[in-house]
Amino acid sequence: MIYRMADLVIDPDRIDDYIVMLAEEIEASLRLEPGVVFLFAVRERLRPHHVRVFEGYADQAAYAAHLVSPHFLTYKTGTAGMVQSLVLHDMDPVKLRAQPGFLDGVGSA
Amino acid sequence: MIYRMADLVIDPDRIDDYIVMLAEEIEASLRLEPGVVFLFAVRERLRPHHVRVFEGYADQAAYAAHLVSPHFLTYKTGTAGMVQSLVLHDMDPVKLRAQPGFLDGVGSA
Repeated sequence: MIYRMADLVIDPDRIDDYIVMLAEEIEASLRLEPGVVFLFAVRERLRPHHVRVFEGYADQAAYAAHLVSPHFLTYKTGTAGMVQSLVLHDMDPVKLRAQPGFLDGVGSA
Repeated sequence: MIYRMADLVIDPDRIDDYIVMLAEEIEASLRLEPGVVFLFAVRERLRPHHVRVFEGYADQAAYAAHLVSPHFLTYKTGTAGMVQSLVLHDMDPVKLRAQPGFLDGVGSA
């Protein structure tokens, strides 16, 4: 399992468009790529153009495949002019726990 | 649902002790508090004393109860001298998706 955290700062004037494209990319990735295990995108309440994406991939091959998928490339090229800053961190797990049915609660987020 | 992100910098000389206490706190919280929906703790690979915890609570009452739970207070007081910096962000969801069985993969992290 590969864990990553993306810290993004988006052009405030483009944030609504960015959010739409990111949400579409996440939906497509989970539907089409079994090796994309989870994508959890949130934004800061006080600075809503500061976005974080916590990402989980089955392995390095799954991550490499994701980077050349049509839906990811659509997102990447479509949002290139909106992203003011992107910092990617490779992460190691400390402890990840969730209640049973956790997905039910977030599925409609 | 309440989403929070905690950005922590831990004393590098105390990081191993800190990780043990954090992991114990997460295990106890998920076992004893149904309103603690998820706690996902990860650390940066390049700076392993930089820790992030992505947190989900059912509602404000569940979060308030968590803050006065014995296991949280044990963690909070036990790690007070280890934490060099703590920034808490209230977060709003953009899109959160995971594969079915996602918990199986992370359950042993």
